[in-house]
Formats: sequence, C-alpha cells, structure tokens
Amino acid sequence: MPQNGREENGYDPEDDRNVNHDNGKLEELGELSVERLFENQEVPSWRKQLTVRAFVVSFVVSILFSFIVMKLNLTTGIIPSLNVSAGLLGFFFVKTWTKLLRKSGLLKQPFTRQENTVIQTCVVASSGIAFSGGFGTYLFGMSERIAKLSTNTHDFKNPSLVWIIGFLFVASFLGLFSVVPLRKIMVIDFRLTFPSGTATAYLINSFHTPQGAKLAKKQVRELGKFCSFSFLWGFFQWFYTAGDDCGFASFPSLGLKAYKYKFYFDFSATYVGVGMICPYIINISVLVGGILSWGVMWPLIEKRKGDWYSADLPETSLHGLEGYKVFIAIAMILGDGLYNFVKVLSLTFIGLSHQFRQKVVSSDLPTAGHSSDHVSSQVSYDDKRRTQLFLRDQIPAWFSIGGYVALAAISTATLPHIFHQLKWYYILVMYIFAPILAFCNAYGYGLTDWSLVSTYGKLAIFIIGAWAGASHGGVVAGLAACGVMMNIVSTASDLMMDFKTGYLTLASPRSMFVSQLIGTAMGCIISPCVFWLFYKAFDDIGVPGSQYPAPNAVVYRNMASLGVEGFSSLPRNCLLLCYVFFGAAILINFIRDLAGKKWRQFIPLPMAMAIPFYIGSYFAIDMCVGSLILFVWEKINKAKADAFGPAVASGLICGDGIWTLPASILALAGVKPPICMKFLSRGTNITVDNFLTPQG
Amino acid sequence: MPQNGREENGYDPEDDRNVNHDNGKLEELGELSVERLFENQEVPSWRKQLTVRAFVVSFVVSILFSFIVMKLNLTTGIIPSLNVSAGLLGFFFVKTWTKLLRKSGLLKQPFTRQENTVIQTCVVASSGIAFSGGFGTYLFGMSERIAKLSTNTHDFKNPSLVWIIGFLFVASFLGLFSVVPLRKIMVIDFRLTFPSGTATAYLINSFHTPQGAKLAKKQVRELGKFCSFSFLWGFFQWFYTAGDDCGFASFPSLGLKAYKYKFYFDFSATYVGVGMICPYIINISVLVGGILSWGVMWPLIEKRKGDWYSADLPETSLHGLEGYKVFIAIAMILGDGLYNFVKVLSLTFIGLSHQFRQKVVSSDLPTAGHSSDHVSSQVSYDDKRRTQLFLRDQIPAWFSIGGYVALAAISTATLPHIFHQLKWYYILVMYIFAPILAFCNAYGYGLTDWSLVSTYGKLAIFIIGAWAGASHGGVVAGLAACGVMMNIVSTASDLMMDFKTGYLTLASPRSMFVSQLIGTAMGCIISPCVFWLFYKAFDDIGVPGSQYPAPNAVVYRNMASLGVEGFSSLPRNCLLLCYVFFGAAILINFIRDLAGKKWRQFIPLPMAMAIPFYIGSYFAIDMCVGSLILFVWEKINKAKADAFGPAVASGLICGDGIWTLPASILALAGVKPPICMKFLSRGTNITVDNFLTPQG
Repeated sequence: MPQNGREENGYDPEDDRNVNHDNGKLEELGELSVERLFENQEVPSWRKQLTVRAFVVSFVVSILFSFIVMKLNLTTGIIPSLNVSAGLLGFFFVKTWTKLLRKSGLLKQPFTRQENTVIQTCVVASSGIAFSGGFGTYLFGMSERIAKLSTNTHDFKNPSLVWIIGFLFVASFLGLFSVVPLRKIMVIDFRLTFPSGTATAYLINSFHTPQGAKLAKKQVRELGKFCSFSFLWGFFQWFYTAGDDCGFASFPSLGLKAYKYKFYFDFSATYVGVGMICPYIINISVLVGGILSWGVMWPLIEKRKGDWYSADLPETSLHGLEGYKVFIAIAMILGDGLYNFVKVLSLTFIGLSHQFRQKVVSSDLPTAGHSSDHVSSQVSYDDKRRTQLFLRDQIPAWFSIGGYVALAAISTATLPHIFHQLKWYYILVMYIFAPILAFCNAYGYGLTDWSLVSTYGKLAIFIIGAWAGASHGGVVAGLAACGVMMNIVSTASDLMMDFKTGYLTLASPRSMFVSQLIGTAMGCIISPCVFWLFYKAFDDIGVPGSQYPAPNAVVYRNMASLGVEGFSSLPRNCLLLCYVFFGAAILINFIRDLAGKKWRQFIPLPMAMAIPFYIGSYFAIDMCVGSLILFVWEKINKAKADAFGPAVASGLICGDGIWTLPASILALAGVKPPICMKFLSRGTNITVDNFLTPQG
Repeated sequence: MPQNGREENGYDPEDDRNVNHDNGKLEELGELSVERLFENQEVPSWRKQLTVRAFVVSFVVSILFSFIVMKLNLTTGIIPSLNVSAGLLGFFFVKTWTKLLRKSGLLKQPFTRQENTVIQTCVVASSGIAFSGGFGTYLFGMSERIAKLSTNTHDFKNPSLVWIIGFLFVASFLGLFSVVPLRKIMVIDFRLTFPSGTATAYLINSFHTPQGAKLAKKQVRELGKFCSFSFLWGFFQWFYTAGDDCGFASFPSLGLKAYKYKFYFDFSATYVGVGMICPYIINISVLVGGILSWGVMWPLIEKRKGDWYSADLPETSLHGLEGYKVFIAIAMILGDGLYNFVKVLSLTFIGLSHQFRQKVVSSDLPTAGHSSDHVSSQVSYDDKRRTQLFLRDQIPAWFSIGGYVALAAISTATLPHIFHQLKWYYILVMYIFAPILAFCNAYGYGLTDWSLVSTYGKLAIFIIGAWAGASHGGVVAGLAACGVMMNIVSTASDLMMDFKTGYLTLASPRSMFVSQLIGTAMGCIISPCVFWLFYKAFDDIGVPGSQYPAPNAVVYRNMASLGVEGFSSLPRNCLLLCYVFFGAAILINFIRDLAGKKWRQFIPLPMAMAIPFYIGSYFAIDMCVGSLILFVWEKINKAKADAFGPAVASGLICGDGIWTLPASILALAGVKPPICMKFLSRGTNITVDNFLTPQG
C-alpha cells in the first residue's frame, strides 16, 4: 500500500489491519508451503509474463485509478491503498478475458499469477504518478490561482498539458534505475518485509489457488455491487447540485451551526470507503484534529478578530484566520515528518550496521518483527524456489548505472528549460544525493511500511528554495525540486516493493522492471490528461470551500514561501502556536513509540490530525461513518467483514471515482444540473418564500 | 386483517400473501395436530383469561396503533393489516412482563395463548374505532374546513372532543350485540374461514409453542430494530421541514416536472412498510392509477382549461380540475363497491341456501376453498377439542337481544341531539336493518376476507341523504348515518373474526366478547383524543397538498353532496368521464373474476387505482419501493423474507407512527424545525442567491 505511506497519513505496521490480516493468512499458508501448491504449474519465462493483454488491462485500470487518485488529491489529499483493488480488478478483467477466449477456442496462454503481478505492478506504477506528479501538491502549488491564496503572489507557473508531460517524462524514470542493483541485497540478503507488498503477493497467490479464486470471485461481485451503487449515488447526487452550497455535499446533517464550522456528513461514498480501509486510529485522529481545530481553536481565535488580526481582511487572506489554519497544519505536518524521518533514518542505520557486522543472511533485525516470524516458518522449500527464480533473470549493473547517468544528463539539460528558476547545478546536486535518499526510503519502507516520499520532497523545497532565494524565483524552484525528488524516491521504493511481490509470486525481476517502466510511461501520459480534464471541467479547482479545494497545493506553496521568506508575515501569536503544535507533534509521536502496543492504538497520529485543520471535519465524519460500518460488521460477522470489507470499500471508492469521469465530461459539455437542494434556516426560508411568492 | 378489507383496498384471498403463507404453516401444523402439542397445558377459565396485565398492555398498544391508523387516515386512507404487529407486540410486552415478574418471584399466572388472543382482540377492537370513527372520512367530512372544499358549504358540523366521544359511545356497541347469537352458526356450523383471523390464530399458536417463541423473539427483534430506525428517520426528517414544500417529503427524486405532477419518492417509512405488507397487485394498481390520472388524464384535461372549465377558478374549486379528480375517483370507488357488494351478497345467499338445504356440517361451500382443505385435515382431535371449549362458555340469547334493543333505544334518543339534521326515525329504520347487513358483511368477510364496511356506509349516505334532502341538512345527516352504519357493521364483523381466532386458540367466546367490549370502550376514548391531538397540533389537516390532506374526508363529503344535490354542478364532460370510470371499474372486476388465477394477479384493482386520482402517486411510489424490497428479498432468501418481512414492515410502520406522537407534541408546544431543505430549479436558485447575497 505505497500510497498510504506516501502521504504519511501513514501507519505503523501494528495499526494496519490489512497487513495483519494478510500476515495471518501468510503464516497459515506458510506452514502449508505455498510453492508446493503451485509445484505443478510451470513458471513462464519473463518475456511471456509480459503479455499484451496484461498491459491493455493495466491501461484501463490505470485510467480508472488515476481518476480516483486525482479526485482524492484535489479533495483532501488522503489517498488509501488501492493495491487490493488493483489486484482484484486485474484478476477480474483477465479472468473474464481468458474465459471468453477459451470459449471461442482462441486461448493460447493461461492466466498466471506472474501475469497478475505484472498487471498490479504496472497499475501501481501508473497511478503512482497521479500522486507523485504533485497535481494536488507541488505542481498545482506553482499555479497563479494558488499563488493568490499565498503570501508570495508574483512567482508562479501555470499548469499546461505539454510541460507537465515533459517534466514527468524526464523526472520519473531516474528512480527506477537508481535502486535496481540493490534488489538482491534488500529482498534476499536483508529479507525486508515490505508488509504491503507481501500482502499483495499473498492476495495474488490466493487468487490463483483453486479455493482462492472462488473467494476472489465473490469479492469481485461485492466490489461490483458497491461500485455500481456508489456510481449511481454519485449520479443521483449530481442532479441536486445546481449552484454553490447545493446538494448532498452541503447537507447540514448536524445542524446549520455545525455546518458553518464544517461538521457535517457530506454523503461521499469515496470517503466512507476510505474510512473502511484506513485503520481506526487514522479515522479517529482525523476526527480529533477536526474537533480540536474547527470545534475549539478557530472559534476561539475568531473571537480575537480585530485584536490578533485585522478585522477587515478578506476571508482567504493568510494574514487572518486562514493563516492560523494553514501554518499550524504545516507545523504539525513538519513536526511529525521530522520525527519520523529521524526515526526511520536511525532505524535504517542501525539495521544496516547489523547487516554488515554479521555479514550473514540474518533474521534478527531489531525491528523487523514480521520478517523474523516469517523466516522461521518458511526457510525451507518456498524460500529456495523463490530465491532460485529471483536470481535466474539478472539485470546487469552496467545497464542500470548507465541508464541512471544518461537519464540524469538528459534531465539536467532539459529541466531548466521547463522551470527557468531551477538552475542546472541544483539538479545536478540533487541527482548526486538522490540514490542515497532513494535507498534510505526504500529500506525504511521495507522495514516499516512507511514511505516518507513527501518528507523528502519538503526537504528539497526548503534546501533548494533557500539556495535560490525569494528574489530568484525560489518558490517555484523549491516546488520543482520537490517534484524531482518525490518522483525519484517514490518510484524507487515502489519498484523495490514490486521486486518483493515478484519474489513471492515467482515473477521475474526483469518483468517487474519492464512492467514498472511501461506503467510509469503510461502514468506520465494518463495522469496529466486526467488532471487536465478536471482542471478544464471544474473552474473552481483550488478555491477554498469549493468541491475541489486541493488543500495540499496551498500547504506546499506556503511551505515554499516560508522557506524563502521566513516567518515575518504571519499573524499575531501564529508563530507561537506553530511552535506549540510542532513540538506537540514530536511529543505525541514520541509517546506513541514509548507506549505499549495496547495503548498506542488510542494515541492519535499528528499527521492525520493536521489534515482537517485546513479543510474541516466533514470528510473525517465520512471516514468515521466508514469505520463505524466496518466496526459493526466485524461485531456481527468478523470473518465476512475481513473477507469482504476491503472489496466493499474499494467498490465505494471506485464507483465514485468512475462517476467523476462522466461528471467532468458533463461539465465540459456545459450540461448543468437542473435542481438545487438548498438548506435555509427557518428565518431565511420565510424571507425567500415571501420573495418568491409574487413571482408565482 | 380487517382494516385491509374495510377500506376495500381489499383483496381476494388468492392475492393475500400473508394468508397463503400462514395457511401453509396451518396445514403443516394441522397434520401434526396443534392441540396435541398444547394437550398438557391447562386452559384457564374465561375470567382468568381476562387479566389486568392484558388490558394494560392492550391500552398501551392501542394508543400506538391509534396513532398509526390516524396518521394513515389523514394521509392517504390506506390502512394495512396491523393484526400481526398487534400479536407480536402483545406477545413481546407480556413476555417481558412475566419474565420480570418470574425473576422477582411475583408471577402468579403464566402467559397463555388465550391471554394473547384477548390482547389482540382488545387492540384490534380499540384501533378499529380509529378507522370506523371516520376521522379521515365521514366525521371529518362534516367539518367546515372540508365543506369549503366541496360544493355544499353551508351544511357542516365542526369536530369537538365531547360530541365525538359521545357519538362513538352510543354508536359503537350495537354491532357487538347484533351478531353474538350467530357465532355458533358461523364458526362451527358454517365453518367460515376468516383467513385473517385464522392467520392470527396460527401466529399466536406458533408463538406459544417452544420453537415458535424463538422465531417470535427474532421477529420482535427485527420489528424493534426497524421500529427504532423508522422512528429516528422520522425524527431526522423533522429538522428539515421548516416551511411548506421543505424536507424529504418534498424531495423531487424524479425531477421537478414529475414532482409537480406528484410523482416522487417521499421517503415515508410508513408507506414503504405498507407496500411490504400489501400484495403486489395492490401496489401496482395504485401506481397504474397514479400514472393514468396524474401522468395522462389531468395533464390532458389541464390543456382544456378555459374550454371545459373556467380558467380563473381557484385551484381547489370543484368546478375546475379538482372536480374531475374527486368525482372520477368517487365514480370508480362506487363502481368497484357496487360490483363487490352484489358479488359478495350473491355468494352469501348461495352459500346460505347450500347450508340450509344440506342442514349438515357441510364442507363443500362453493367458494370457500380454504375451508375445505382445512376440514379434511383437521376434523379429528383438534376440532373436537376446539368445539368443546367454544361451546362451554355460552352467552345467553336474551342478553344479546336485550342489549341490542336497549342500546338502540338509547342511541335513537340521543343521536338527534348530537346531529340535529339526523331525525330519530332515520336512526330507527337503520337499526332495524342493521343486524341483517351486519350478518351479511360478517358472512362475506368470513368467506372472502373482504369487509365492505365503507360500502355499507356509502349506501347509508345516499339513502339517508336523499331522504333528508339538501335543504334539511342532508349532507350532515347522510354522513352521520354513514357513521352509524359503519360502526355497527365494522364491530360486528371484527367480533365474528375474533370468535374464530378464539375458537382456534381455545379462548372462550365470553372472554372474546368482554375483551371486544373493553377494547371498543378504550377506542371510543383513545381515538378521539388522538385525533384531537393531530387536529390541534397540525393546523393544515384536510388542506390539499399539505402533510395531512385527509383525502377521503373530501371524497365522503362530495359523495354526500352528490347524493342530495345531483350532478348539475359538475364541470363539462366530468359526468361522462364518471360514467366511463364507473363502468370500467365494474368491467375490470368482472374480467378479474372471469380470468384464471394466473392472469388475475396482473389485472389491477379499480378501488386501489382510484386512491391516487385525488392525492397523487407519491405514496404509490413508496409502496412500490416496499414491494421491490420485498421482491428482491424473496429472490435472495424466500424463507427469511417470509418469516421477517411482516416484522420489518410492521417495524417501519410502528416507528413512524410512534414518531407522530412527539411530532405533534412538539407542534403543540410551538417548537418549530430549524432548517428548510428546499428544492429550487437552477433558474430560481440563481434568483434566490442574488436576492440573499446582499443580506450576507
């Protein structure tokens, strides 16, 4: 579940229900020896694993997932794991395809789990670009529209389809080449767990054992059912959204006063699904954050209007209440990020020093609890067979190193033409350090399932931004550097996880690498196009309070401004509050790590708490509704909830995601919804009725 | 299910799922011999069957049911069977009570099925008054408010708590005494089926066998769950109803144009539940009627505005479109009523002549298909034991005849003081013929499960109305006569059905009679009070298009006006259309009877079709949603749907019904909902937004 970690609403493996669940299955299967079950199945050569049908299916699913990720980017920035859905949908499409072909007698090659892994790799790579492309963060943060919401308004670069595609192509492939030579060390020698990658591998393995396929079919049916429901619900809602504050998304289910402070259930199937996938603690953290900010702090600060900040500022001014919202959120995100950066880095070095001191295939990594269980039960046949196949297809070191150098040269030469604020020597320096950071992140990810992609990005913002300086376009330079860094680090750790998945499903490293390449190329074209569709279809993207507020774009923009300009322009006491929340974020994380497993699950995550600070709690309420549904379901029938919960959640997310496609086409075609479902207080309603009556 | 038949949205036994279902159980149990299962249980004496706790429970459930029936009366006039709920709730309350007492060691008498039958009899008698009291029909039709909607506006009598209670007390007990002497003939000699009574008896029997109690508990749990849901849903909806056309009840789910013609889903849990209880054909009939009238006829007639009727009439004038709606509906109801009256009457006479010709306990009644199955499988032990107990407790003939005469004398003397338009000789004539009509109706009801109470009432309207004449207050006289007639006929057939239920559960006829007396007395007080609460709490009762339009009040009023004034004042072509629909109603019924069982289920019932003519199709859509839910449920799991469908439906109806109690208290206390959920077209919304913006 790379995307989970990426936006760092991440979680410890202990919190992760999916992983725990699949590890349960893992050990159970481990005792049976998974590979013995597949002994009679021939493993196709790596070229045969890369079928045309796999990439056709990947392309279709990628488009769907790009829509979903883009929608999530532009609404709240919380992106749940879509790996399970990718696995399910890939299985479903190819299975249907092969079934049809078998009936018509044209089937030449059966559907294997290696092929399924190829699809899943390709889809994750492709939809990953929708995240690391920064459409909801750095890239959109460069635009004029977001600049106007920030303190630094003159330094901007508006999005355009051509330069975005170009930028992604020159920046996204480097990461892949940077870590390829390390695959054997990480997967075989270090035995890193990659919990999400392992979970996905076991999912795919279970699909392709006869009993597994039956469950998979049922899961797909549930997914399809809830997908249709969620699509139709989105369609139905659309009719009532003629105008602002119309429709179910503005339903003041907790009253008009609560609505004013963004406490309401907005009937979004997506976020109910997200709530079902995310661990309880994430949902509760988000809600706690919402209550703390919109329920307590903002109303209190609002009372100081005219004292702490000028009373006649526009509502979106960062010198007013908005400033508190954005900068306190940033402080908390940075505090959490810093803590985890230091923590993961030190774990990495402790782990590495262990590895090199012992110089053996060690199984007692200090923190990799999962892998030790793992090894003891699986050392025998499974491991032998997997290692043998993993080492069969080599990727020569000269190829990857050469590729990296060549791409870095091209990139260094072309990027300054796209962003004139980004000098070539900034890029060169980044490319020298990038492989080290990519390795660190991949290692930490393998150990903790926690990817720090955006933290590395933020690091780049501050370093390159400060180096360039405000007067030399430091804001855009910082954001562009963030993009370069995020693309390298993100693709590198994804690839490493895919190697692990491939290892566990006997898919060749070569086919994984090629699939990731093709997926990345797809993503570099699909994601910008999807973004462009949104951008053109909905004119209010990035406008606070609109359907697509793209909250992280403002946050990133302001981080860059802060980096180049310092704290001078913040409203009164804002800096003090920022320090408090920065410290609190570190403290809470520290307490979480000190607390026993029993108590940890009750301590909220500062990163998740910070999100509603800026956009409000409505999505937190959606997510808690999702949690509640899952909780009740688990109480009623735990086995069923475990088996079908992720499918139902994915269905809800997918259906709503698919609906955004026709919705944006309708918007582009100028078809507007016919009805406004409006919510008025009784007093206002009487006024409106009196106003309307003479008109008939 | 007496109330079903009463409003004559009645159905053939063939249509009745509940009855079929329970007959299935019946035969199954019949083969086992029900009474053998209960052999070891002592049957308490009739005095011991009448416990204080039974009447306390009955009183509580009666209040609840009176609210439900009153709400149904005042919204559409469609009243489904509440017998199953009465049985369930009675069982639940007394079971809880006895369980608590047993724990505290105070239990003296165990809970028997006889006691359960007493509760069910009492509740049905009491809530029956809420129907036969005419609060949605004749009684409210006398009021000034309804008179203003009619052609004859000067002849009215406004409701008042005192005279309503008085009227009900002098009119409601006669029916009970009129048929008591015939109980042995009808139940034992004629072996009438009384499908609903039989179903209730088997329900109660099954509750009191050990396995049955388990199912009953589960059913009660389902009922409770959906009852709470429906209550909370009603409560939630309330918040959004500040003002007219606000809230979910005005949700234009099929678009604004469809809403204008009353096609929308109004989110009423009550009517979804009603749809789940009513047979499919009723729901489809209502929908077909709605499409025919509001979808086709009214729009077409509206185009003739200025030609067929004056263009500058107010919308509620009966000389305009409203006239077509009301009188075509009346024509259809009268056509259907006449057909069935003639049919049931001739069946009655054919049946009677058979009985007397054969002079034996015959089992081959021409149409009583159910009873013949019945007899063959149950003639042995069960019948012997039931007959023995049924005949043990006698009610002397002198008592019932004397009671009837005494009550008739009191009634004849007092009624003219309540309605000065109703002369004492009208009443005397009615009381002479009433026992015959009461017998006819009870017999037909026993045979076909189809009670023609309101048809007898309409007969009285026309006869007494015409006799009194327009100038001597014929309208109120007719309506009052309708009330007298309905009360007699309705209580008589209810009592007979209860005798049947008592026969099948070994409850004594004496305890049934006493329970019915007490229940009727309760109803004579509870129902007027509940009506009074509604009447005071909601000022727009009876106003077309409001929350409580009480459509049948207008229909009854206009029937009375038609009776005394003739057809002269109808708009152009209205009379022609009335003839056409009167004829069509007879023709459709005739075809239904000619058609085989296979085709009959696809031919709509004219009586059900006529209801939406006046009030629109929204409740038809609710009911079809209920049907659809049940249909899908039956497809998925037939056994579960059969076992829990009625419980879920009852829960939905009960919860919404309970909510009307706090809702009316809130309205009386002047607490108004805070929010208006309004639906505006896009154009209007822009106007409203422009109007509201300068205000902030």
